[in-house]
This record gives sequence, C-alpha cells and structure tokens, in this order.
Amino acid sequence: MSRERLYLFDTTLRDGQQTPGIDFSAEDKAMIARMLDDLGIDYVEGGYPGANPADTSFFREKRTKRAAFTAFGMTKRAGRSVENDPGVQMLLQAEADAICFVAKAWDYHVRVALGCTDEENLDGVRQTIEAAVAHGRIAMLDCEHFFDGYKANRDYALAVARTALEAGARWVVLCDTNGGTLPHEIDAIVRDVASVVPGERLGIHAHNDTGQAIANSLAAVRAGARQIQGTLNGIGERCGNADLVTLIPTLMLKPLYRDAFEIGVTEEGLRGLTHLSRAFDEMLNRAPNRQQPYVGSSAFATKAGIHASALLKEPETYEHVPPEAVGNRRRVLVSDQAGKSNLVAELERFGIDFDRRDPRLDGLLSEIKQREAQGYAYEGADASLELLARRRLGSVPTFFRVEAFRVNIERRYDAHGELKTFSEAVVKVNVGGDIRMSVAEGSNGPVNALDLALRKDMGELNAYIDDLELVDFKVRILNGGTEAITRVLIESRDGQGNRWLTVGVSPNIIDASFEAMLDAVNYKLLKAGAADGLAVAAE
Amino acid sequence: MSRERLYLFDTTLRDGQQTPGIDFSAEDKAMIARMLDDLGIDYVEGGYPGANPADTSFFREKRTKRAAFTAFGMTKRAGRSVENDPGVQMLLQAEADAICFVAKAWDYHVRVALGCTDEENLDGVRQTIEAAVAHGRIAMLDCEHFFDGYKANRDYALAVARTALEAGARWVVLCDTNGGTLPHEIDAIVRDVASVVPGERLGIHAHNDTGQAIANSLAAVRAGARQIQGTLNGIGERCGNADLVTLIPTLMLKPLYRDAFEIGVTEEGLRGLTHLSRAFDEMLNRAPNRQQPYVGSSAFATKAGIHASALLKEPETYEHVPPEAVGNRRRVLVSDQAGKSNLVAELERFGIDFDRRDPRLDGLLSEIKQREAQGYAYEGADASLELLARRRLGSVPTFFRVEAFRVNIERRYDAHGELKTFSEAVVKVNVGGDIRMSVAEGSNGPVNALDLALRKDMGELNAYIDDLELVDFKVRILNGGTEAITRVLIESRDGQGNRWLTVGVSPNIIDASFEAMLDAVNYKLLKAGAADGLAVAAE
Repeated sequence: MSRERLYLFDTTLRDGQQTPGIDFSAEDKAMIARMLDDLGIDYVEGGYPGANPADTSFFREKRTKRAAFTAFGMTKRAGRSVENDPGVQMLLQAEADAICFVAKAWDYHVRVALGCTDEENLDGVRQTIEAAVAHGRIAMLDCEHFFDGYKANRDYALAVARTALEAGARWVVLCDTNGGTLPHEIDAIVRDVASVVPGERLGIHAHNDTGQAIANSLAAVRAGARQIQGTLNGIGERCGNADLVTLIPTLMLKPLYRDAFEIGVTEEGLRGLTHLSRAFDEMLNRAPNRQQPYVGSSAFATKAGIHASALLKEPETYEHVPPEAVGNRRRVLVSDQAGKSNLVAELERFGIDFDRRDPRLDGLLSEIKQREAQGYAYEGADASLELLARRRLGSVPTFFRVEAFRVNIERRYDAHGELKTFSEAVVKVNVGGDIRMSVAEGSNGPVNALDLALRKDMGELNAYIDDLELVDFKVRILNGGTEAITRVLIESRDGQGNRWLTVGVSPNIIDASFEAMLDAVNYKLLKAGAADGLAVAAE
Repeated sequence: MSRERLYLFDTTLRDGQQTPGIDFSAEDKAMIARMLDDLGIDYVEGGYPGANPADTSFFREKRTKRAAFTAFGMTKRAGRSVENDPGVQMLLQAEADAICFVAKAWDYHVRVALGCTDEENLDGVRQTIEAAVAHGRIAMLDCEHFFDGYKANRDYALAVARTALEAGARWVVLCDTNGGTLPHEIDAIVRDVASVVPGERLGIHAHNDTGQAIANSLAAVRAGARQIQGTLNGIGERCGNADLVTLIPTLMLKPLYRDAFEIGVTEEGLRGLTHLSRAFDEMLNRAPNRQQPYVGSSAFATKAGIHASALLKEPETYEHVPPEAVGNRRRVLVSDQAGKSNLVAELERFGIDFDRRDPRLDGLLSEIKQREAQGYAYEGADASLELLARRRLGSVPTFFRVEAFRVNIERRYDAHGELKTFSEAVVKVNVGGDIRMSVAEGSNGPVNALDLALRKDMGELNAYIDDLELVDFKVRILNGGTEAITRVLIESRDGQGNRWLTVGVSPNIIDASFEAMLDAVNYKLLKAGAADGLAVAAE
C-alpha cells in the first residue's frame, strides 16, 4: 500500500527564538540545526537574515546536509522593486536552499499594518516569489493571519494563496498567527483552500493558544495539507508552536497516520526522540516537562494506583504506544527491567564490552538511579555517564588526584577608587605521586580561576589536555529555596573538534563546577589514551 | 437564544493525585475543593474513600457548598452482594452528594483484570448504580478504557453504558483511559454512543498522551456529550488530564461554544482564572507554566519582533481573546530590537509617570540597548527593568551601599579525613551612614553565603526584607569560551507570595549573582516603601 509523503518544517530557530526567555547562542543554533538535520526534518528554518547581525551571519554558510536550509523574511515592500528592496536582496543572497516569505493574507492588515492596497500586496507576493524561484531557491509563502483573514474576506485570503501558487511557490503555508482557530474551523477552511491550492503544496502553521496546536495540525493534514510547521518541544511565541516531538510519534505510530503517510524520520530517529527532546531542554537550561506526551519522564509512569498492577500484567493494553518506540521507558514502582535494557543500550552506544549477566551491571544501574535521585542528569552528560560506567565495569586509571583547592573572590575599591572584583584559585594536585601546587587568577571569575589553576601544571599530563577548552557551562538550581542543589553541565571541546558534556552536582556551585571540570579532564585523558604509567595507585 | 447547559467535573483531587510527584495534604485538598466550588465547577471529586485513610476521613464531611461533592470508587465485585461489598458500602456511607463508580467497558479487561464474566460485570454495574440511587446519591459511571473497548467489542462497550443508564445513572462517562484516542475517533464513537445514551447524560474523560486532551474533550461535546471531566492546570496520571483552566475560557469566549452552551462559571470567575491557576501552582510549590494557554505569563507576550509594533496598533486582531477576560495581561517584551513604543508600554505597565517628550526616555532606551548588548536580558527580569527605569526617570532612594565583599571557598580534608568544602562571605555595607560588617557561612555555597552575609545586618532595613526569599537562580554563559560573560537571573519571593525577577551580568559569576541579588533586595525595599530617611546621600 503506497503512502503519501508528508513534509516536516521546523521553525525552532525562528519562531522558537521568539519564545520569551529563549535566546540561542550561535553555537546553540548550529547544534540545533545539526540535530534537526540528523532527525530527518525536511525544512530547517535558520532565522531571519537581515533582521539582526546574528541571523545574517548564521546564513553565511549552509547549516544542513540533507534538510533544505531555509531563510525567513518578508515579501518586498510596496512602491519599490525587488531589486531595490534591501530585505529581499538580503534573503536572496543568504546561503539557503529555500526561502519562506511571510505576507499578509488579511486585507484588513494589508491596509492597517502595511498601508498599501490589496493589489500592491498581491504584486509583492508575486514578484518576490518569482525572484526567489529565479534565484534557484525553493520558495514558499507563510500566509499570516490566514484563518482570521479568510473569515473576514475569503476571496482575498484565497487570492493571496493563489498568487503565491501561480508565482511558483513550492508551498503555501496557512498560518494561524494568533493561535485562536479551533480544529473544526481548520478542517472546514483547509478543505475549501484545497480546492484552490492542491494539498501537496499546502502547509499548516499552528500555535497553541487554545491548547490545540497538535489537533489543528492534524486536522489540516486530514483536510489535505501535506506540510506541518512546528518546533522542538513546542517552543515559540506566546503559548508556543505545534510540538514536532509530539507530532512525529503520532504520525509514525498511530495506524491511521502511519498507514497513510511517510515522513523523513526513521524508526531509529524515532527511538532517539526522548534523548533529543531532553538534550534540547538541557541546551535551553530548563527542566524538561515531565508530562510531555511520549517523551516526558512521566509519559509512561504509573503511580501504585488502580492501574499499576494491571499495567504490569498487560502493559500493551494500558499504554497507547510502546515507550521503547520513542526511546522512553515505562515507570512503575519496582520494575527495573526497562531501566536495565536502557542502560545496556547506552553501554553499547559507548562501545563498552560487558557481560549482560555481570552483577556489576545491577550495581551500576542502582548507582545511576541513586545519583539521578540526587540531581545528576545523565541525559545531557554522556561523558560523565561513560566515565561512571567504565569505572564500575572496567577500570579508569586515576590519572591524578586533587588534594585540596581554595578560591578567593574579593570586591574592593582599587587604587583608582573603582570597585573591582578579583578571583584567585589555588589547587594542590597529585600527579604520579608528585604534589604540585598552582595558583591562578581568573579574568572570568572563580570557575575560570579554578580551571586555569587545575590545568596549569599537571606535569606530563599537560601534553594531553593543552587543547582542551571549556566552551559552555550551564547551571540549574534544583528544588530551589534552602535545600537548593546546584547542577552544573560543562561542555568541552578539543583541537580535533570533539565535544563532550559532563555534569557535577553539589549544594555548592563551585564544587559542582569543579566536579564537572574533573570529569571533563579525565574524559579527555581517557580518550587521548594517557597511560596508566602516569597514574598514582588507584584509590 | 437559549443555550444548552454544559457540566464541568473536576478530578484534580482524584486523578490529579495520581500525578507523579504530587501529594496533597488534607489542608490542600480542602482548599482546592473550596477553590473549585467558588469557581463554579458542577462536580468536585474529592477522592476514593476506602482506598486510603486520608481519602476516607476527607469524606467525613461535605467539602463544597454549591458543587456536588463526589466520591470515586469501584462497582461491586462479582460473587458478592452490594450489601456485602465493603468498598461499595464505604462509598455509600461517605458524605458525598454524588458517587462516580468506575467499571470495565472492555470485555478483554473484564476477563483479564477482573476474571469474571461479561454478564457478572454488567450485574455489578446495575446493582451498584441502583444502590447508590436508592441511597439518594447522584450516581455516575466512569466507563474505563471505553474507546479501546468499543474498538475491540462495540456491543459490549455499549451494553455497559446502556446498563448504567437503565439502572438510573445521571451520567455515563466515556474514559479514554490510556489517552491514545484521536479527536476524529472520539467524534465518531461518541456520535454512535449518543444513539444509545442521550447526550445530556454523556460525559468525556480525556488524557493528554497525544497532546490532544482539550481537542478530544471538545470533539466529544460537538458529538453530543454534555459533561467534561478535567483537572486544574491539567495535572494527572502520565501526561495529565484535560486542563479545565484551558477549557473554561475556550467554552466562555469562543463564539461557537459561548453561543451554544452555558456553564457554571461566571465572567467574574473567569477573570479570576489566571490568579487561581498560579495560586494552585504555588500550592504545588512549582513554577507556573509560562506558556500555558490563556493564563501563562507568556500567553499574551510578544517579543519586539515583526508583530510587536503592529500589536500595539491593533491588539484585538493579534490576540485571539482579550487577556483581561481571564485576568491575564498583554506583555510586549523589551529586547534588543526594542523600540520606544515597546518601552512606553512597559513603563505604563509599571505605573511610572512620565512625559513622552521627556528626553530622559531616549537616554533610558539607549541605556537598555547598551546593557542588552552587554548581555542583560530584561524581558525575563521585570524588576531590574523597573528599577533601571525609575532610577533614570524618577528617583530610587539609595537604601544602602555595599562598600566591599569577600568570599572564600575552600576544599580540604577535614578532621575525619573527608574532603569537605567550606564557603564563607564577608560583606561591608553602608546603611544610613553606618558601616556594618557581617560574616556568614553558606551551607549552599558562595552565593548563599553572600546572600546571608548581605542581609544579616542591614539595620532598620531588615524589617522590610525578613520575608524575602531567593527561590530560583539561573545562570547562562553568553558567547562561551574565554570572553565568556555570565548572566544570572534570580527569582525572589516574599511573604505575600509576590515573585519578581532580577538580572546581573558580569564575567564573574559571583559578581553577576551579587548584582541580581542587590536588585532583588532594592526592589523589595522599593515596593515595601522603605523610607528615604534610611538612605545615605544618593550617589
């Protein structure tokens, strides 16, 4: 039975960037684009070149391999030609495979917001799309406020859609810009539009203002649309966009969609979805939503209640999909099985040799659970997890041991009567039996001072870690207030461009940072193959 | 035009109690029941008397005035009479107006989970409902796994529903127990069931496992159902139940529902919804979901982007409902693209008097942009923005001045040969001319030590800040690597439950934390009306 192709368009880096409190660094954006590309998203929207320097420079190079790297921007202004519209020119020059233009589809906004005539707006759409096509770009049009516009003036809304189509747009995307449209309205309107724009060129862009972004997206697909726009974990302006992390499993696992449609995500990609979703939240430095459909840590959790025992008897009749299909796991008090098979998969991923019957496996599992209860989050810190596992199962050399450290931060008026803050760290480290004491001042504060002092003199080990660089660190306070626990995630990089994440947990932010720092150094030494000979007697 | 009555059933205290990590105290339950009663919910389910002592004692008295106080439990077991079934007897003795019984509607589960015959299960339903009615209770039946059961054996699922109806059940509730049913399936199945059970006696109980609990509930209503079961903020087992806080505004504000249906919530109650939702999260001691539809702090927030300026011109066309209707408010976030109009909107929100032609306004705007270029993020830190604005435009007293501080973090082996880390801070503060020096040790590290030392002795100011509490702080490293800048966001809370966010930026994490801390304290002093008299001469 042949299935129709359904296309996924991700706007995490554009609409998602509009989320209050979210601000991607250039490194974040590059990493997110890679994640989406690997996942199998068809269109990855990278931002709005020309709107700000960051987005402009992000489009100096193509950021995806398989996905169409897509730029976002406005159609040309009225009263000027495409050639003389700097905004449009900026978009045409961007290193993008596709350009998603946005245009008003509500005649009222054309007058109020643009102050031009309905016809000028249509001309803008036509000429801009044609220019993009002429430049060899895949062109698409986001019809802003399409559904409100349709209700106010059906003919004009349809005229905007038709104009884009006739100008050569690959996709005409119907945007529920203020998120207020309800599923049955989406259904009726999309069916009507499909009589003008064939479904295989229709897209839907839904927001969650009534908690129905998912339902609206699926209603549009049932009505004929074949492109869905959304974001990772549903981030986005106001209440967010349609959550691709929820849509993908629904499309791939629910028979009605699975049997009718094909998307670019593989079953392996689907199994990686839980990890991807949580890694993304770590990048945003926020706690994952435990109740998030499919991937939340509670999504398949059952409290010992009326369901738990029956669940253990007949899981498949109590779970609407198998948790493993999305890389999640069942959580019922007592049952460890899911946990163990998860761990086994991780160890294989690390390439660690082990015997499934090795009792140390259970020891490792319970230690991980114990540590996660303390606040460690290994989802986002593979390197720390690998070190922990190798220490338990194999043996990781004790390359060095820190005997003591001291950090001093002082703010005082300097000689010129200005308030200045000084950070100094002293570290006493034991390398191969020699005690080495180093002191350093941190231009970036205490963690920087500690990092410098620690690596200043590690004797023969320095050769292995000279190219190690701390590229990012994130701090989260768990159960705030007085019992606050601090979790620090450190991202490190070396000369070969390897990146790895380590985690530290402590009530003390300096301790937590130092623990993650030590893991980062030890991981590098391990991968660099620093020899046992350097080690002191294992503790 | 006469509207049909639609009934709301809240299960926060029963299904909501199944949420991993949520455990209500007796006081919590009583307060939640009152909140729901005042809101205008028709049925407030208080729990499962007989399942545990807490629920049993909760039903020793009626907890609602207007709402029907409802007990939850199972229908009688096979092989014994209602009189000899302790569970059912416990329910009949509970101080409840209504009893919601749960029964299997899937013949497969009748065999596997109950181990009785289909007919015995039907008998149990009939006799239990009849007994409840005979005891003068409003009786209703939750048909567990109804939709899966219907797909597996339509006739039996319908037989269970019909049996309850004929036995005198006021409501037959169709439960999507594992949450996997999709809206169009709900629509088709409920329409079919409505041919057996009249819609005015049909209810829907939806879960959010595909992110469509709201859509499923509304689909059922459109198909004929007239009772919706849900919870506050959508708490509940796994991914949660249908969120009544999202459903209520949709039913009251969206024309299609508003014109067709009437619910027990008044417009005044609706205006209190944002407060109720956040107060409930306070009770759960968790941060409210900023992206929650209608009531989230971001639900009507727009970053200065392509929409902001137009939004200010024509809010009603950019907002699907008026924020005030649910007690929420519009927020146009100042961010690096901020224009003067956004700033003006913010200042008005702060209640700051100013003259639009005041040149200091431009000074303030350029200072904000300059600071945001340095890494400050005011969109997430209202309190710091308000302080900055008031300092520029009006005058904020200099309540105190920190002359110097010193923080010492030391890790060393203690007397028992264990590696321990000690954090100590010394702060020299000038209050009203007196220099006060305080020292404190931080059980939670250096920031904690600084916080304690700073507030330890501020003289007469202490009276204003005794109830100040640091509830969360977030750290973000901007442009990582060696030029790293640290941004710290601190969330504070006081005794009246006010929460405010402040920001600090510095290459030094301790400096950044301290700056945000100072803003938090100054903001509290400002709001508490600490007098000028305490101030030293303004700098």
